[in-house]
Amino acid sequence: MNESELDQLSINTIRFLAVDAVQKANSGHPGMPLDAAPMAYVLWTRYLKHNPADPSWIDRDRFVLSAGHASALLYSLLHLTGYEEMTLEQLERFRQWQSLTPGHPESHLTHCIEATTGPLGQGMGNAVGMAIGEAHLAARYNRPGFTVFDHYTYVLASDGDVMEGVQAEAASLAGHLGLGKLIVLYDSNRVTLSGTTSITFTEDVAARYESYGWHVQRVSDGNDLAAISRALDAARDDKERPSIIIVQTVIGYGAPDKEGTFEAHGNPLGVDEVKKTKADLGWPEQPPFLTPPEALAHFHEVMERGAIAQEAWRRQFAAYREQFSDLADEIERRFAYRLPAGWDASLPEFPADAKGIATRKASEAVLQATAKTVPELVGGSGDLDPSTFTWLKGQGDFESPLRPHDGAQGVVGGDWGYAGRNIHFGVREHAMGAAVNGLVYHGGFIPFGATFLVFSDYMRAAIRLSAIARLRAIWVFTHDSIAVGEDGPTHEPIEQLLALRAIPNMIVLRPGDANETRCAWQVALERTDGPLTLVLTRQNVPTLDRRVYAPADGLRRGAYVLNPEETQPQIILIGTGSEVSLVVGAERVLRQQGVRARVVSMPSWELFAAESAEYQASVLPPAVSARLSVEAGRSIGWERWVGPSGDILSVDRFGASAPGGVVMKEYGFTVENVVARALALLGLSKEEKTS
Amino acid sequence: MNESELDQLSINTIRFLAVDAVQKANSGHPGMPLDAAPMAYVLWTRYLKHNPADPSWIDRDRFVLSAGHASALLYSLLHLTGYEEMTLEQLERFRQWQSLTPGHPESHLTHCIEATTGPLGQGMGNAVGMAIGEAHLAARYNRPGFTVFDHYTYVLASDGDVMEGVQAEAASLAGHLGLGKLIVLYDSNRVTLSGTTSITFTEDVAARYESYGWHVQRVSDGNDLAAISRALDAARDDKERPSIIIVQTVIGYGAPDKEGTFEAHGNPLGVDEVKKTKADLGWPEQPPFLTPPEALAHFHEVMERGAIAQEAWRRQFAAYREQFSDLADEIERRFAYRLPAGWDASLPEFPADAKGIATRKASEAVLQATAKTVPELVGGSGDLDPSTFTWLKGQGDFESPLRPHDGAQGVVGGDWGYAGRNIHFGVREHAMGAAVNGLVYHGGFIPFGATFLVFSDYMRAAIRLSAIARLRAIWVFTHDSIAVGEDGPTHEPIEQLLALRAIPNMIVLRPGDANETRCAWQVALERTDGPLTLVLTRQNVPTLDRRVYAPADGLRRGAYVLNPEETQPQIILIGTGSEVSLVVGAERVLRQQGVRARVVSMPSWELFAAESAEYQASVLPPAVSARLSVEAGRSIGWERWVGPSGDILSVDRFGASAPGGVVMKEYGFTVENVVARALALLGLSKEEKTS
Repeated sequence: MNESELDQLSINTIRFLAVDAVQKANSGHPGMPLDAAPMAYVLWTRYLKHNPADPSWIDRDRFVLSAGHASALLYSLLHLTGYEEMTLEQLERFRQWQSLTPGHPESHLTHCIEATTGPLGQGMGNAVGMAIGEAHLAARYNRPGFTVFDHYTYVLASDGDVMEGVQAEAASLAGHLGLGKLIVLYDSNRVTLSGTTSITFTEDVAARYESYGWHVQRVSDGNDLAAISRALDAARDDKERPSIIIVQTVIGYGAPDKEGTFEAHGNPLGVDEVKKTKADLGWPEQPPFLTPPEALAHFHEVMERGAIAQEAWRRQFAAYREQFSDLADEIERRFAYRLPAGWDASLPEFPADAKGIATRKASEAVLQATAKTVPELVGGSGDLDPSTFTWLKGQGDFESPLRPHDGAQGVVGGDWGYAGRNIHFGVREHAMGAAVNGLVYHGGFIPFGATFLVFSDYMRAAIRLSAIARLRAIWVFTHDSIAVGEDGPTHEPIEQLLALRAIPNMIVLRPGDANETRCAWQVALERTDGPLTLVLTRQNVPTLDRRVYAPADGLRRGAYVLNPEETQPQIILIGTGSEVSLVVGAERVLRQQGVRARVVSMPSWELFAAESAEYQASVLPPAVSARLSVEAGRSIGWERWVGPSGDILSVDRFGASAPGGVVMKEYGFTVENVVARALALLGLSKEEKTS
Repeated sequence: MNESELDQLSINTIRFLAVDAVQKANSGHPGMPLDAAPMAYVLWTRYLKHNPADPSWIDRDRFVLSAGHASALLYSLLHLTGYEEMTLEQLERFRQWQSLTPGHPESHLTHCIEATTGPLGQGMGNAVGMAIGEAHLAARYNRPGFTVFDHYTYVLASDGDVMEGVQAEAASLAGHLGLGKLIVLYDSNRVTLSGTTSITFTEDVAARYESYGWHVQRVSDGNDLAAISRALDAARDDKERPSIIIVQTVIGYGAPDKEGTFEAHGNPLGVDEVKKTKADLGWPEQPPFLTPPEALAHFHEVMERGAIAQEAWRRQFAAYREQFSDLADEIERRFAYRLPAGWDASLPEFPADAKGIATRKASEAVLQATAKTVPELVGGSGDLDPSTFTWLKGQGDFESPLRPHDGAQGVVGGDWGYAGRNIHFGVREHAMGAAVNGLVYHGGFIPFGATFLVFSDYMRAAIRLSAIARLRAIWVFTHDSIAVGEDGPTHEPIEQLLALRAIPNMIVLRPGDANETRCAWQVALERTDGPLTLVLTRQNVPTLDRRVYAPADGLRRGAYVLNPEETQPQIILIGTGSEVSLVVGAERVLRQQGVRARVVSMPSWELFAAESAEYQASVLPPAVSARLSVEAGRSIGWERWVGPSGDILSVDRFGASAPGGVVMKEYGFTVENVVARALALLGLSKEEKTS
């Protein structure tokens, strides 16, 4: 068998493993595996630096299947190149209950998968984050003679990926940053779920990517292995620009009655068409899931080369450790997600202060202190640093060394190149979300992304994926209520808090003052098994006197009693975030009126719900049925905490444009109104009580 | 005063009205009004076809301030050109409680405003929708000699707009559709909130828009009125391509210490800088809100020309009516949002059927019938017509007459040009949302946008704006639960139902069978004061026998009793959507076991919450505290309906990839499990009862 025959045999092995898996499941997408198998084959067997025996090798190349619907292609590649986890049985159980081969790749389920994809365009953003990660680690840790970090990030994308807005944002950002080791193979089969792209998509993608500053190449025949290789060589040689290789393919290649049509996209070919396709491509009809020994042996060469490559890297890293033991330790620590010992020893404590500070401002102080001790903390905002206060002072801006920005204005760090830790995402919230996810996927980072709470809507699809994949991402959302004021309803979040709480695996924390904000960041950094959202105020809130009120680390339990000395409360007042100061103020007034109120700060529903029933009952004793929650967000869901006899002070309509204090007052968020609602709940009118 | 002096006086009048408004509010964005006043002046006084005396003239040009933060510029223009609503007092009350001049433009509040903007990029998508609307109405209603519809859609956009993904999607779509009467003035001041665009945004925007097929022009000096005019002339002359005019400006033009810097972007200039700016531009320091009589008189010429233009149009329309009275009536009816008499007389009724059909499929049948009688119903999906079943048969595809697509595959209509009513949005959910909003803003349409429920996340910012602006938009989301099955967690909505219910002004309807789906479409078309979301199944659900169960139009009240003959229930089972059949099935089993269960279908929380307390109590009698809700979505919020002694069968984790029936079973969505949970709630184990 000559080389070319072996190539074809191997490519068809990929193709028919995928086709058979889809057919057996009677569900899935056969079209792209058939057409993209050649480029995937070339990439995986000739270029991709990976060692199937160790999917966690930190300097492996990353491969992202942005077109997650072609999962069967990826599973075939993983199986054939020898990833232990991906057995043939798993391929036979494609899309079945508890298999490692779900309909779209899931990284938390199948460990040799780099990223959970499927929602289109996300993988492009993930890959940009991974490439940022590689560039940063290389800039920070490599030393003359030691390239501890030197890997590419490859993406396989589809027409659908290239239509999505998140992709457009990510590609613009990657071009700006000059991420030369990012290489996208764009499988341009010009067919989507509902027909050919001529119906919807006639732009000049090549020209668009050139406008972003990418290196653009075309391969006119997706079966031309030599052309694909040449393009990959040229892409790898261009270290200054990200590359996209537009590969023209025919969807469902080889399926005689369906190739080139949308019918090959998202449904099994059918028994007859599978038969015909196998016949046309010279493949035995039986058995299914055939892996010819020659092909398998050929694929397994990847394992040998991978083992050799990783061994060489290991030797280099051992030598590196001898010279730079601190750096080597730091690298290992980062990838093991162990925080530095004593990282939070000098976080600021905030003295009691009736005027107080905005929690976004307290967050800034905590963030600065944290950034000094936790180098893996990197992040940025969607062009809002002067408002979110998330710029890490003295940590530099992440920017292309070839395109240092003028640094004359705003919050810019200047001349750090890729070693900078402040990532300026631009007005590109969705790409920010996907790129932050990519940094987590890459490993070695605790990344954050920041914007106004209301604009979490722009990046919600990425946030959801951080929760599905249980990524250690931190979302920082400021300007968290109608108290935003003048900017009006388009900028005032109402339902976002609830909408974020609605995402499974997400922890939402809305700290009530500066010291709770400190604890919130501690919880955020310590969390290992999923994303966490910090919700912060624009406006000042009083810093509680913790000599009077319970310690702020009660936040860790989701809800805690601020005045535990009141053991026989008539009513429980529950506040979150900026509304904690309202319930605290109301308690004081009520006390003067002889009403005994318990005050509870409830920064996190999720953390409190995870506590024992005993603890929950100790905070919210069942015997106290008069309960009032105060939160400048939707009422939905508060019934769970205030119970059937409770009351909910909430915002169930959109906001308004006026000074923040005016809006809060008009919407009932004043101590007076909290007092009045509390008294009404107790059946005491204010007049009765004060008389 | 010569012409040039009058121009400058007028431009400075705009500038300083805006600057004074921001300064008086001590909040807002002075930078863009200063730099964009010249282009806005040229557009509004020389090109924009509008009659300030009648902001509702249907053939006016539309103007969208996509950069909503420059609202003070828009308010100044509206005031100066004579819109009655926009008094000087309103400008003086900029950003104050209950003024018509909120921080960002709000169309539902200020009627002479075309679109609610502020969240960046949305206005671009709205404008694409408006231009689609104009093209469609012109194609449908214009006749030789009668151009009833012939207007432009203008956009003023900022750097931030041009960075957003929704903009990228919208621009690609507009280029594909060849929307020649869409003209964007891009105020390229190269400064955003946090600094210069060199930090984040160095792509070649002109080349990018060329790649989309747009006509791209540059004006190198934003103060060059002649150049702006020439560019607008050329843009208007190009009827085959949308146009973007990239106007280089200096942010905060004229403010000596702040111009060209991010400090001019989002904060008042300050008293001193206002003083200096006025001095530099030769403007009297006092009084503020100065409108020189010469300038005012000049601006008021717009009113005269506008009145003449509208009068000419009125005469033409009267003549049109004589020849085409049916069409004229139809146009008036559409813009008055009156549905055609008897529009729903022949909607399908679905016979009882134990196997049933998917509600997306029932929806398709209702939609086809509706499309025949309601010509203003237009819409499309994000490349999912074969799955959402929202393609209107026989109503043609909306496509550029110059670029008819090949129409060989999928669901395509062919050769209707702009008269087609199926809009193929492509894999561009966010732009779809913004464009659907734009169709409502334009008037004359009841538009819908469709995708999978899980991908509502991609377009959430646009959905929110439909709710803020109370737009009559219909969102159709199919594949509504874990029953999606094989595609796995990335494609299985869990929290989306709750997240949509969380949006104020939104009505979410999740019909339980085919006949409820019919009623749901009736409610959707009849709703006039806000958006409505239809949530539909992928899988079959039984069609209830309405001779046995209550009529499906109970849906109109949000929740209703399916078996009202059971007057003394021990327990209430509440289901929504596909889970209605589970509670119906469980009731049958329980009845056999001697347990009296009431069965409630609750397709809409919002509609039920809007009913009287009496009606609510008639459906959910307070005396019956054993209540079980069954819905394949989050539990949060169900406490409100099941009460403190109730139980909630829900999905509080992400889904899984397996056949849909398997996933439903594993997650507890079976009749058996509903029965078991019901018995447990009543304190009866299944065994006890059946023995």
